[in-house]
Amino acid sequence: MERKILDEKVKDIEENFRRASWKIKVKGREILEEFEITPPQFTALLTLNAKDNLTIGELSSEMYLACSTVTDLLDRMERNELVARVKDEKDRRVVRIKVLDKGRNVINGVMENRRKYIDKILTGVSDDMIDSVYEVMKMLNEAMEI
Amino acid sequence: MERKILDEKVKDIEENFRRASWKIKVKGREILEEFEITPPQFTALLTLNAKDNLTIGELSSEMYLACSTVTDLLDRMERNELVARVKDEKDRRVVRIKVLDKGRNVINGVMENRRKYIDKILTGVSDDMIDSVYEVMKMLNEAMEI
Repeated sequence: MERKILDEKVKDIEENFRRASWKIKVKGREILEEFEITPPQFTALLTLNAKDNLTIGELSSEMYLACSTVTDLLDRMERNELVARVKDEKDRRVVRIKVLDKGRNVINGVMENRRKYIDKILTGVSDDMIDSVYEVMKMLNEAMEI
Repeated sequence: MERKILDEKVKDIEENFRRASWKIKVKGREILEEFEITPPQFTALLTLNAKDNLTIGELSSEMYLACSTVTDLLDRMERNELVARVKDEKDRRVVRIKVLDKGRNVINGVMENRRKYIDKILTGVSDDMIDSVYEVMKMLNEAMEI
């Protein structure tokens, strides 16, 4: 492909990809209101779910937010029974954050909402195009292994 | 397409899409370290760029963070000359946040990094597949108009 044409395509691909990701994210998060949690709380939940048993200091570093801000987020999340503070078994002075079942339900609910949205988008789309979407996403994700 | 097969495809599409978006986001943001800005500061920058002249209260609502947290973010961003606090022309008691040239440069740098990454990913990929990526992203973004 000619360089100039490729540059144009890459520009369009990046822009359409970014906008579509953003729209799926918004749709996925609509469920957060039902669970009365805010987007930063959801980010904390995802981070804690990926790396369980973090301390508040570790979570603050991961989120690039001050400990006091993260403490506030966690207070509300603990009251809402999404997470719990537990004492480290080896060193009782260390407090770690554990994701509770309700927290995992929120994450699963958001993923389910994202799938429903994609499903809705693909209604009326030809089988060939659905196969293309599938192949493209698979190729991109595999090529992007980091 | 059979419902069961479609469900499987949608599940895979959602997962691959989510992972690929995350990887592009990480790659795009690598530039933030050069500019010495953190991801929450970048989120603030994007929000302010999309809706210029927000007040601190409005930005806090948009980001679902406490005013004190957003004030801290803005203090550092102002010292770094990414944004400036300006008095509202109609009501001098109201302070609004303006994105400065350096802030816009950071946003453009991140977009450029994202494009470079996609370009790299597509190296060695057939022209037909590149066309498929283009068509799929265009279709998804258009179908997702919200």
